[in-house]
Amino acid sequence: CAGATGFGQSGGVDEIAEADGFEQRIQKLEAELAALRRDHAGVTAESEAAESETVEFAEALIPAEESTGVVTISNWTNSGYLRFQDEPNGAALPQPNLGEDPDLPNLPPGFRDRLGQPRSLFDTSEYPTVNWSGFLQLDTGIVDQDELNVESVGRVAAESGLRRVRLRVDGNVRETSTYVIDLDFAASGHPSFRNVMLAFHEVPVAQNVQMGYFKQSIGMQAMTSSKDLRFMERTLPFAFDPFRQTGVGAFGNWAGRRGSWSLSTFGYPTDSFGVTTGDALGTSMSTRVTGLPYYEDEGARLLHMGMGYSFGSPSDNIVRYAIQPGFFVSDPGNPDASTGVPTFVDTGKIPARAFHIFNAELAGNFGSLSLQSEATFAVVDQIGGPTLAFAGAYASVGYVLTGETYGYNRRNGILRNIVPKENFDLSGGTGALELTAGWSYIDLNNKNILGGDMRNFILGVNWYVSQSGRFTMNIIPTHLIDPEYGSSDAVVIGGRAQVEF
Amino acid sequence: CAGATGFGQSGGVDEIAEADGFEQRIQKLEAELAALRRDHAGVTAESEAAESETVEFAEALIPAEESTGVVTISNWTNSGYLRFQDEPNGAALPQPNLGEDPDLPNLPPGFRDRLGQPRSLFDTSEYPTVNWSGFLQLDTGIVDQDELNVESVGRVAAESGLRRVRLRVDGNVRETSTYVIDLDFAASGHPSFRNVMLAFHEVPVAQNVQMGYFKQSIGMQAMTSSKDLRFMERTLPFAFDPFRQTGVGAFGNWAGRRGSWSLSTFGYPTDSFGVTTGDALGTSMSTRVTGLPYYEDEGARLLHMGMGYSFGSPSDNIVRYAIQPGFFVSDPGNPDASTGVPTFVDTGKIPARAFHIFNAELAGNFGSLSLQSEATFAVVDQIGGPTLAFAGAYASVGYVLTGETYGYNRRNGILRNIVPKENFDLSGGTGALELTAGWSYIDLNNKNILGGDMRNFILGVNWYVSQSGRFTMNIIPTHLIDPEYGSSDAVVIGGRAQVEF
Amino acid sequence: CAGATGFGQSGGVDEIAEADGFEQRIQKLEAELAALRRDHAGVTAESEAAESETVEFAEALIPAEESTGVVTISNWTNSGYLRFQDEPNGAALPQPNLGEDPDLPNLPPGFRDRLGQPRSLFDTSEYPTVNWSGFLQLDTGIVDQDELNVESVGRVAAESGLRRVRLRVDGNVRETSTYVIDLDFAASGHPSFRNVMLAFHEVPVAQNVQMGYFKQSIGMQAMTSSKDLRFMERTLPFAFDPFRQTGVGAFGNWAGRRGSWSLSTFGYPTDSFGVTTGDALGTSMSTRVTGLPYYEDEGARLLHMGMGYSFGSPSDNIVRYAIQPGFFVSDPGNPDASTGVPTFVDTGKIPARAFHIFNAELAGNFGSLSLQSEATFAVVDQIGGPTLAFAGAYASVGYVLTGETYGYNRRNGILRNIVPKENFDLSGGTGALELTAGWSYIDLNNKNILGGDMRNFILGVNWYVSQSGRFTMNIIPTHLIDPEYGSSDAVVIGGRAQVEF
Repeated sequence: CAGATGFGQSGGVDEIAEADGFEQRIQKLEAELAALRRDHAGVTAESEAAESETVEFAEALIPAEESTGVVTISNWTNSGYLRFQDEPNGAALPQPNLGEDPDLPNLPPGFRDRLGQPRSLFDTSEYPTVNWSGFLQLDTGIVDQDELNVESVGRVAAESGLRRVRLRVDGNVRETSTYVIDLDFAASGHPSFRNVMLAFHEVPVAQNVQMGYFKQSIGMQAMTSSKDLRFMERTLPFAFDPFRQTGVGAFGNWAGRRGSWSLSTFGYPTDSFGVTTGDALGTSMSTRVTGLPYYEDEGARLLHMGMGYSFGSPSDNIVRYAIQPGFFVSDPGNPDASTGVPTFVDTGKIPARAFHIFNAELAGNFGSLSLQSEATFAVVDQIGGPTLAFAGAYASVGYVLTGETYGYNRRNGILRNIVPKENFDLSGGTGALELTAGWSYIDLNNKNILGGDMRNFILGVNWYVSQSGRFTMNIIPTHLIDPEYGSSDAVVIGGRAQVEF
Repeated sequence: CAGATGFGQSGGVDEIAEADGFEQRIQKLEAELAALRRDHAGVTAESEAAESETVEFAEALIPAEESTGVVTISNWTNSGYLRFQDEPNGAALPQPNLGEDPDLPNLPPGFRDRLGQPRSLFDTSEYPTVNWSGFLQLDTGIVDQDELNVESVGRVAAESGLRRVRLRVDGNVRETSTYVIDLDFAASGHPSFRNVMLAFHEVPVAQNVQMGYFKQSIGMQAMTSSKDLRFMERTLPFAFDPFRQTGVGAFGNWAGRRGSWSLSTFGYPTDSFGVTTGDALGTSMSTRVTGLPYYEDEGARLLHMGMGYSFGSPSDNIVRYAIQPGFFVSDPGNPDASTGVPTFVDTGKIPARAFHIFNAELAGNFGSLSLQSEATFAVVDQIGGPTLAFAGAYASVGYVLTGETYGYNRRNGILRNIVPKENFDLSGGTGALELTAGWSYIDLNNKNILGGDMRNFILGVNWYVSQSGRFTMNIIPTHLIDPEYGSSDAVVIGGRAQVEF
Repeated sequence: CAGATGFGQSGGVDEIAEADGFEQRIQKLEAELAALRRDHAGVTAESEAAESETVEFAEALIPAEESTGVVTISNWTNSGYLRFQDEPNGAALPQPNLGEDPDLPNLPPGFRDRLGQPRSLFDTSEYPTVNWSGFLQLDTGIVDQDELNVESVGRVAAESGLRRVRLRVDGNVRETSTYVIDLDFAASGHPSFRNVMLAFHEVPVAQNVQMGYFKQSIGMQAMTSSKDLRFMERTLPFAFDPFRQTGVGAFGNWAGRRGSWSLSTFGYPTDSFGVTTGDALGTSMSTRVTGLPYYEDEGARLLHMGMGYSFGSPSDNIVRYAIQPGFFVSDPGNPDASTGVPTFVDTGKIPARAFHIFNAELAGNFGSLSLQSEATFAVVDQIGGPTLAFAGAYASVGYVLTGETYGYNRRNGILRNIVPKENFDLSGGTGALELTAGWSYIDLNNKNILGGDMRNFILGVNWYVSQSGRFTMNIIPTHLIDPEYGSSDAVVIGGRAQVEF
C-alpha cells in the first residue's frame, strides 16, 4: 500500500479546479488519473527509485501475480541471525550472500523458519509451526473433618497454591503431521510431561495415528482437559484410569462424525520421564467407542453413549488404586507422596499379572442443562491371591443460569465447556454462571484387599468471566468407610482461579 | 493492497492517449476510472477470479469498514492445524468446513489463537496474547579468606557458572487481565517458579489486583528485578524480606502517580512449587507505601521515600534468617543447601509464632548520580524464649561516567537502571559505564540467638554494552564477626555477563 | 490500504452513467476521482476521522517516504499491556500517554518488544529477537543378550519412551550478539541444560566468542547435533569427549572458509546446573582444527580432515569413562545412574590430576555416499598409579538410495544430514532413504584399570519423511570383553521416531 499512502506526497494538486472549459477539466482529470495509476502501479520508473524498497516490500508482501494466495516475504534476510547460522545443520538450502547487503532488515520472531531463513507470511509450505499456549490454576481449600476421619487419614491441613502451571507448544511439521509438548511446572519433582507426542492425520483407515506419551482413552472425564472439568478435580472412579502412558494409537470418527473411536497399545507403567521399561512393553491396550444417537444444534442438544476397555500388563507386576476426596494442591504424582491432601482410599500395592478396566458412559446436553455419568469396573488378576473386582461411578449435572448452551467435541467424544456470551466487566457484563452438582463413589474393598470405600457429593459454581478466565467453587461432603476405623465424614471446601492463554 | 499491486496487470493501457476529441478522452477516462475502481473495490467480477485469493487477503487484512482500526484476517484458516483441532475443548465456535478448501494457506505462529482460529492481526478483541522474554547470567568469582574465616564458614571454592537462566511468558487474556509465568532453570532441584500469577487492572479502588505466587512488597531492593540490581546480588538486609509467597494483593498509585502503594495477604512459608500449607494460611501480610517529594525530568532528578511492614505467621512455626556475603552461583534455594558459597550468618531455625518486619527507604536520582538506602528491622515472637530483634541496613551509590541519567519505575516505586545512549561497538560506541559503591550490614545476634554479624563494602563497575547486555564486576571486602570464631575477613571478587531478551 | 478497500463503500455511485452531455460526464469523473484520491490520500480531513485509525495503521505499516525499507508500526500501543507495564524496569524510554486513547488496538505477540513497546515489523534495530525450536525423539529397543553378557552387565530390559524432548530459544540481542537457551525435558532429575550461552560475532581476530555452557569442541560426532546423527546414538569413542562444560571460547573459519577452528577454556567438571566449582576452575581447554583439502558442489563432494586436543584438570580429581552399547532411553546423566541400559564398559572413578584427549578425523562426501571416521586417545595422569592410556575409534558410512546428496556445515566443520528432495506422502512421494553401516570400538583396559573392551557393528536405515521428520532403525551386534566375565555378545535392535520443529 505504499502507493496509497504516497498519494499525499505525489502531487501538488489539492483540489479539482472548477475550470469551466472541458479541455482544462479533462486535462486535469487525465493528469490526476495518470498520477493515481502511477502511484498504484508498483513504481517501475527509475525516477521513483527512492520509493522502490518500500514498494518492493509491498509487492513481496502481497504479490498480485501470486495466484495461489501465497504471500512471501522473499527478498529479505535476517542478516545478523543468519551470520551466526550461516550453514545450519540438516539442510543444504541455498544461503543468502551475507556480505552483499548488510543493511537488509532483520525479521521479527515468527518470520524466520528454523533454518533462519525468512518465513513466508502465509505460505502453506512453511512448516514447522510453533504455537504456545498454557494455563494456570490457583487453588485454595480446607477440609473439615470429624474426629474419626482425622484418625482414619490424619489431620488434613488447609492448602493454597498453584495446582497446575502448564505450558504447551504444538504445531504442524507438515500439513498432516503435528507435534505436542505439554509440560506441567507445578507438579512435584520436575516439570512433568503431559502430552508429548507426534501425530499423523488423514491416514488411510486409521484416520489419525499418534505416538509418544498421551492419554490412553477409555472414558470421558479422563479425556476432558483438566481446565475444562465441571468440578475442580476428576471424580472418584478416575482412580482406575490408565491415563497417560507411552504408546502408539489411532483414533478417528465414524458414522459421519456421529461417533468417535480410539485404539492404542502402550507400555505400563510409564515413569515420569515418559519411559516404560520391562518385558511387558507394549502388551497393554485401551480402546473406546462413542456414539451420538441424538445430535442437534451443533451439540447444544445431544445424547452421548460410550464404552471403553483397557487391558494392562504391568511390567513391575504391581497394581495400585488410590484417590483423594476431590481437592488437592500438591500433586502427589504417585500414591507414595506424603505432601498435601492424602488419599482417603488406597488398595496399596497389589501383586498382579494384569488388570482389566471396563467403562460405560452416558451423557447429554439439553440447552443450558448438561448431564454426564460413567461407571467403571476394574478386575485385577492378582498374583498369589484371588482375582479382584473394584468399582466406581459418578454422575454430574450442570445448569447455566445465564443461558449459554453446552457444546460437544466430536473428535474426542467429550462434552465441551460453555463459552460466555459476554465477558464480565464492570459496565454490566456478567460472564456465564453455571451451577453444578454431582455424586461419585469408589469401592476398593474386595476379598483380601481392604482399600476403603468413599462416596461424595459435590456442589459447585463455575463463573466464566471470559473465554480465558474462570472461577470455580466446590463444596464436597465426603463419606469414608475405612476398613480399619469405620465410617467418618469430611467436608471439602475448595476454590480455584484459572486463566488460560 | 492487492488492488494496488494488481494495477500493473489489470489493463493494457499504459498512458493516457492524447486524443483531441473530448468524447474519446472522456470515454478513456471513464474506462480507466472504472478499472481503477474495480481494482480497488475487492474484485467481484468472475473474470478476475485468479486474483481473488490475494485480494481477499488484502480485504481481510485491512477492511475499510472497520471503523475501530481493527484489522482482521478473517477468511483464512490453517487447514492442517484445524483439521487436528477441529472441535477444540472449551468453545462452541463455528468451525470452518475443512473439507471444502484444502489449499487454504496455513497461518504462521502468532496468527492463530488458542482455539486454532486465525488470529486477527490488530484486533483488540484478540486475546490472549503470549509474549516470551528472559535473561541469563553467567557468573564467576573467588572468595579470598583469612584463616579464621576458613575456620568460621569453611573453605569457599571458586565458582563459575549459570547464576540465573530465566524464561518468562506473559500476556493479556483480556484488556485488563494479565498473566505471568516466570521460571528459573538454573536453580537447584527443578525449574523454580519466579512470578506465577494472574492480575486484574483498572479495578475500582484497588486499582490492580494480583493472585498467585509473587513478591510480597516491603522494600525497594527486593522489588527490583535481579537483572537490574546495582550490584551482583541484593545486599545483606535482604535476608529479612518475605519475598515471593503465594497470596492475593492489590497495588496502585496515589497522589497523581507521585506515590505507590501495595497491600497483600499470603500464606507463609510457600514451598518451591508455589504451595503453602497449614492452619496459618493467609494470615500473613505485607504493605508498602512510597512517595516522591521531588520528581523532575521523568525521574532523572528525584527524591524517593518509602516504608514497608510485613507480619508473618509461619504455619510451620519456624523463622530462619541467613545470607551469603554478596556472591554465589549455586542458588541454594534454602539455607540447608550445602552447595556453593555458604551463608556467612545464620540464625538457625527459631521456633516462632510470628515475625514483624519494618523497612524504611530513602533514595534519589540526581542526573548521573543515584543513591539508594534501606534499613530493616525484624522482630521475632519466639516460642519458648524472649522476643528477638535483628537489624540490617545498606546504602549504595552509582555514578555514570558516560553521562546517562537514571530513571524511575512509578508503578513499583523503584529506581530504574540506566539505558546506554549508544551501544558499544568497535567503531567507537562505548555503551554506558557506571561506577558503583555500597555498604551493607546485618546483625543476627540477639539474646539466645547467635547468628553472627556481617558487614561488607562493595565496589563495582557496570558496563552496559546495550539495552540487552551488561557486564558487572564487584569487589566485596567482608568482615564477619562469628559468635564462635570471632572476627574474620574475606574478599569476594565476582564478575557477571548478563544478556536479556 | 484502508483507502483502497474503502472504495466500494465510499460513494453511492455504482457505475459510470452514460450521460451524453460532456458536462455531466466530466462532473461525474471529477467527483469520482476526488473520492478516489481522498480515499487514498491518508485521510487528513476531520470529517473522515472515523477512518483515521485504520489509515494511520496503513501508513505506519508501509510508509512511502521510508527510503530505508524499514517499516514501523509506530503510532500504536498495546494499551492493555502497557497499562500494566507503564514504567518497565531498565529503561527510561518515553512512554505513551495511556490515558489518551484507550481504544488503540492491541498488538499480537511478536509485535511488542520486551519493554511492551510496539515492535517495528521490519526494523533492523528491533532487538532482541526470540525464536523457538525443538525436537523430540521417541525410542524403542530391545537388547538380545547371551548368558555371559547377562552375567557381565545384568539383564537389560526392553525400553520404550522419550529419549529427548528438547526446547530451544535463541535469538539476537544485537546484530552481532546472540543467545541460546536449550533445555532437555526428558533427561532424569530436572530439565537439563544443553547449550546455554551468549555469543559475540564479527569480533576482530577471534571471529566468534562464546561464553556459558556449551560443547567444548574436539571432534566431529560430538559437535553434530543429536538430531542429525547417522545412527541413533554417538559411537563408542564418544565416552572420552569432554562435551558440554561451562567456559569461554572462540571459533571461526580460516582459509576462506575451507577450514574451521575453535579454542576454549573451561572448568571441569560442570554440574547439571551449569556450575563448575573448585580451584581447577578454567584450567581445562579444548581445541580443534579442521580443513577441506577438496570441496565442491556446496559440500556434496568433499574431503574433510580434522584434529582436536583437550586438556582437563578435574577439580574433583576424578576421571571416569563409561558407555552403553549404542542404545538407551533413560539418559543416565552420569555413570552412577541405575536406570535403563547399563554401561557395558566403565573405568570406575580414577583418581587423576589431569587428562589429555587426542582426536583425529577423516570424512568425505561423494554425492550420495558419505564416510566419517575418528580415532580418539585418552591419557590420564593417575594419582597414586601409573599414567593410563585408553583408545577408541569408529568409522561409518551412509548411502542414499533416493539420490540426495550430503552437505557440510562449514562453520562447525561437520557433515550435514541429507534433506529429502520430496516429502513422503501417500500420493507417491517417498522421502529420502539412507542405508547406514558402521563399526566402533573402545578399550578401557590399561595397567591397573580394567574397564572392559567393547566393539560393535551398526547396521541401519534412516527414512527422512520430510525435513522435519525422520525414522531410524539400528541393529547393533556388540561384542564385550569383560575383564571379569570374558567375551560375551549382545545384539541391540532399536528404533526411533523423530520430529523437529
